[in-house]
Amino acid sequence: MSKAAEQYNITFLPSNRVIKAAAGESLIKAARNAGLHINASCGGAGVCGKCRIIVEQGEVEGGWSEKLARQDYDHGYRQACITKVKSDAIIRIPEESGVQDGSLSTEVPERHQAKMHVFDLESLKSEKIFDPPVEKLCLELSPPGKNDNRADVGRVVHGLADQYSRHGIITGLPVLRKMRRALREKNFLITVTLERQVNEKFRTRMTNVQSGCWSSRNFGIAVDIGTTTIYGQLIDLNNGKVLAEEGDYNAQISYGEDVISRIIYTEKEGGLEKMRSLVLETINSIIEKLLKKNTPPYGLTEDSITLDEINSITIAGNTTMTHLFLGMEPNNIRLAPYVPVSTFFPPFRAVDLGLKMPHHAVALLYPAISSYVGGDIVAGVMGSGMYRTDRLTLYVDIGTNAEIVIGNKDWLVCAACSAGPAFEGGGITHGMRAASGAIEDFSLNPQTFEPMNLTINNKPPVGICGSGLLIIVATLFKHKVINQSGKFNKVNTPRVREGKSGFEYVLSWREDAGGDHDIVINEVDIENFIRAKAAIFAGSKTLIEEVGLKISDLEQIILAGAFGSYIDLDSAMLVGLLPEVDPEKILYVGNGSLMGARMSELSNHIRKDVVAVVRRMTSFELSEINQFKDNYVASLFLPHTDTNLFPKAASLR
Amino acid sequence: MSKAAEQYNITFLPSNRVIKAAAGESLIKAARNAGLHINASCGGAGVCGKCRIIVEQGEVEGGWSEKLARQDYDHGYRQACITKVKSDAIIRIPEESGVQDGSLSTEVPERHQAKMHVFDLESLKSEKIFDPPVEKLCLELSPPGKNDNRADVGRVVHGLADQYSRHGIITGLPVLRKMRRALREKNFLITVTLERQVNEKFRTRMTNVQSGCWSSRNFGIAVDIGTTTIYGQLIDLNNGKVLAEEGDYNAQISYGEDVISRIIYTEKEGGLEKMRSLVLETINSIIEKLLKKNTPPYGLTEDSITLDEINSITIAGNTTMTHLFLGMEPNNIRLAPYVPVSTFFPPFRAVDLGLKMPHHAVALLYPAISSYVGGDIVAGVMGSGMYRTDRLTLYVDIGTNAEIVIGNKDWLVCAACSAGPAFEGGGITHGMRAASGAIEDFSLNPQTFEPMNLTINNKPPVGICGSGLLIIVATLFKHKVINQSGKFNKVNTPRVREGKSGFEYVLSWREDAGGDHDIVINEVDIENFIRAKAAIFAGSKTLIEEVGLKISDLEQIILAGAFGSYIDLDSAMLVGLLPEVDPEKILYVGNGSLMGARMSELSNHIRKDVVAVVRRMTSFELSEINQFKDNYVASLFLPHTDTNLFPKAASLR
Repeated sequence: MSKAAEQYNITFLPSNRVIKAAAGESLIKAARNAGLHINASCGGAGVCGKCRIIVEQGEVEGGWSEKLARQDYDHGYRQACITKVKSDAIIRIPEESGVQDGSLSTEVPERHQAKMHVFDLESLKSEKIFDPPVEKLCLELSPPGKNDNRADVGRVVHGLADQYSRHGIITGLPVLRKMRRALREKNFLITVTLERQVNEKFRTRMTNVQSGCWSSRNFGIAVDIGTTTIYGQLIDLNNGKVLAEEGDYNAQISYGEDVISRIIYTEKEGGLEKMRSLVLETINSIIEKLLKKNTPPYGLTEDSITLDEINSITIAGNTTMTHLFLGMEPNNIRLAPYVPVSTFFPPFRAVDLGLKMPHHAVALLYPAISSYVGGDIVAGVMGSGMYRTDRLTLYVDIGTNAEIVIGNKDWLVCAACSAGPAFEGGGITHGMRAASGAIEDFSLNPQTFEPMNLTINNKPPVGICGSGLLIIVATLFKHKVINQSGKFNKVNTPRVREGKSGFEYVLSWREDAGGDHDIVINEVDIENFIRAKAAIFAGSKTLIEEVGLKISDLEQIILAGAFGSYIDLDSAMLVGLLPEVDPEKILYVGNGSLMGARMSELSNHIRKDVVAVVRRMTSFELSEINQFKDNYVASLFLPHTDTNLFPKAASLR
Repeated sequence: MSKAAEQYNITFLPSNRVIKAAAGESLIKAARNAGLHINASCGGAGVCGKCRIIVEQGEVEGGWSEKLARQDYDHGYRQACITKVKSDAIIRIPEESGVQDGSLSTEVPERHQAKMHVFDLESLKSEKIFDPPVEKLCLELSPPGKNDNRADVGRVVHGLADQYSRHGIITGLPVLRKMRRALREKNFLITVTLERQVNEKFRTRMTNVQSGCWSSRNFGIAVDIGTTTIYGQLIDLNNGKVLAEEGDYNAQISYGEDVISRIIYTEKEGGLEKMRSLVLETINSIIEKLLKKNTPPYGLTEDSITLDEINSITIAGNTTMTHLFLGMEPNNIRLAPYVPVSTFFPPFRAVDLGLKMPHHAVALLYPAISSYVGGDIVAGVMGSGMYRTDRLTLYVDIGTNAEIVIGNKDWLVCAACSAGPAFEGGGITHGMRAASGAIEDFSLNPQTFEPMNLTINNKPPVGICGSGLLIIVATLFKHKVINQSGKFNKVNTPRVREGKSGFEYVLSWREDAGGDHDIVINEVDIENFIRAKAAIFAGSKTLIEEVGLKISDLEQIILAGAFGSYIDLDSAMLVGLLPEVDPEKILYVGNGSLMGARMSELSNHIRKDVVAVVRRMTSFELSEINQFKDNYVASLFLPHTDTNLFPKAASLR
């Protein structure tokens, strides 16, 4: 939401390629975006001194380190990784930094990232389904008199019928206790809060009453409970705008990184209650921060939004997270045949769940499909609009456990793939989360096999994150440093050597790296990567074949999850993680779970649709399908045993 | 419920009247029941020594005091009030104790008490509406397997559909938290508790789950919150039986005897919360006592009923009591135009109300009609079956505020009459509640004007309770000691004298009484009594005239409330409290509120009917009807200004 930085034209010589770059961007990233290779071992931290370029025209900022002689600096030499764009400029990549023939256009392609799918508030409005589950209505009532001494609540109920055609209202203790005073404080002008049911047949609850007219102040919260991170958004329910967003690590993380270890923890005495209170702690602190972030002006007055003005919260999370949050015993989620306690959840009073919210706030939880296809996925299917598209769509949320959904507005099938934690850095010698110093982008000088490492925050490399791993494997494969099976070919560079776990490629020598050792990728790492991508591809292929279709019938791919935002589509297709489709047909939805939660906060219609979607969504247990094993084994190659499935990848190599 | 005592024939001479009397009953009560007068000033405490009789045949027990000479005792003399029936006997009432001509058959009529209306459990069963709002069902489910890994809750919901055709089930947090374990403890044999909604369209709640089969153990509680007293019954919901009954004073009583003073108390800081916690305290202690009273065997096991086995509680009370119990501000109940906060109440979770009951128990409150026709009256109309009778019925609940309902199965009208507290002893010089030493029955020697006082527990008289007051006024009127206006005639007895508040009749001289003064009834007392009875009669007359009918159209009278149980019907008609109808057509329902609460505990059908009954019940404000004032003034006579309304009373005098 920050103001977009000014854009400049950077011309790279000798290739003469021109690229737009934002003020402050490093020249090495600009080159990378232009598809140009510059040797860089230290991740852009200015340490290795290999990324020398010459500024031939224009102004830049920085670019000097001890590795650069004063004399060279005066001749326009800079270190690309620490030089920042300041104006239009012409930059030469000298031969020692780049590749020798200066022509890399086919060698290092531009990155194709998926297009961001934007939350479609306008379409909610235009389709007239912008109808938050909780609404506030102002009522001006006539005071009681000799010939009209109806009870207070009866007066309000009749007013709702007369003035808004709202019928079948039911209420509860807090409203009964406030009603008399609320009516009389502003001479029978009141605001009532109504909580609509998912089914119109059921009765609407009057959850709150205020004296005076406050219908313009109606706020809600959407929450995604991730195993690792929890995100929340504060939403103005009158216009659908996100007023604030906050995220924090799930406090459960210190008791186990994945769902299985947390389930095991709950089996200890007091363990479930501990897990529940930890996730509550995080959510409650996010709610508090969301409110603090909100400063005037919103709504009628100059006041900030108070907790009392929050009327609803919609929460999505995977099945285990939902169990832990509600305090349901998750034990059987990890034991065959993997039975959750419940996949549907009634509306709760937020306070009953332990949320620090007002008594009148309702808490709505996204339903799940099964133990391993949870409310987060259902929310993604809703939030991305997949459930109402005509196009045959593959929805993939890649994490420790990749979940896949295939279908369109007429039918939906889903499954969980045990992809393993490779994309989150697990099982990879120098794997790590997407944090400072993680190699997130990479290219290879095809002549010298020298790398260009780009790291998060330009710190000396300390490891490889998921998106980097994908690009590294794809690049090594493309340049035949590794073969179809992920094993190293004999190539002429000291960077390929035999290590403790078979052959390995040295991404960064110790002296250029952020730790006290070389950063490498070895054959075991590549094997783990191949298993992970095979699980996802084989899962998708099996699922689509189960419904009698072929992978080539897919018309659209939707990527969800943090990994999906950074994924290089060409690499993903080259290694056989994603089926080959036109990159234009690939959308990225970011945190699909949070998006879906927000959508339900804004549309009771969507909330109703969720029930129907869940009912028509068929869950498959891949391990129970014979074909899955064959598909999996066939996918344990780069890109696949059956190269007909990947004609483009086959032609590139 | 105690075993009925053995019955004996007692023959009284000289009248030769024979009466059945239970073993242990006093001879003075037996005489009273036979319609015979025996002078007795001390209330049957053996103090005044005036009630001497002679045992001519048969065995008796006791009957001697210092007032009786040894020689007389040996000749068969006894004091009737302290002599107890032990066998068939022949008893002579000597002239000095009774009346001189020995023929009193027309002088002291037998008492006609209203027939007890028995709660009609069998008709609930035969009409197939014996369907408690909360039911328990046993389910034997197949355990999950490879091809069936539905969620636990889904399995149960499907089981309910398959095995019991129960659909649209919703559940809550406690069940979600217990479900996994409950299913697995007894190999998927469970019992679920279902809370049915009053409207079948709404969803049934699954409120509890237990492992094993426990459907035979389903218990509920019915409560009547009276302003003075609170009663509770423990009910077996499988057969409708009352397992225990308990009553206690409403702990609020120390803060004001009537509803108005309690409402005023709530207007103090913290007053409402104080009132709420006091009534809760009483109800919670009654619940505790009900459970303690229950000893084996009930249900499947030898165990007592535990709190956890109570699934519902139905509560009826007047509008103010209901407000105080729920913590709703009652302020406007006492201020024109007398607006309650609400007359309808949703089902509550008992724990939310502060009741010491399990989490799964539902609390159902009887709806009210208006500020002064409350849920207690609605419950009485339901419990007595009035709402489904063909006969035009007058329902009267006499207390501080008499409430009257007129109608039948097609229509119902109601009103509250400000009768004042005369029938509860208020505003009467020596008025008191029906407690030990209260004169509850009375007759007069028409020659000597000597009284026969019968007191509660045969204690020396300390005052006059409501039923006694009615009989005293009627008897004085009948024997022309007082006139139509309630003023004393000149009669030849020292018992009629001028006192501080005009003329008075001495019921008991100080030496025969339980205190340090004479017990009297004076003209102010009688005036207060007349005002009270006039309010009730005029209210009934006005109400029936408002719907275009006459008081003589009434086909049935139902009396409710503690007072109704002891009321002497002939006296009531003689003074013009009740219209003259065949005593056979008068029914007494006792605590109608408690009976109605019990009925709703046993029949969801009745619960549903309640809503319809309340909707069709029209409430009148008597003070707003011009005719009421005229009717009231015309009723300020004994029995009435228009003697055509009371032909029998007119002929008796």
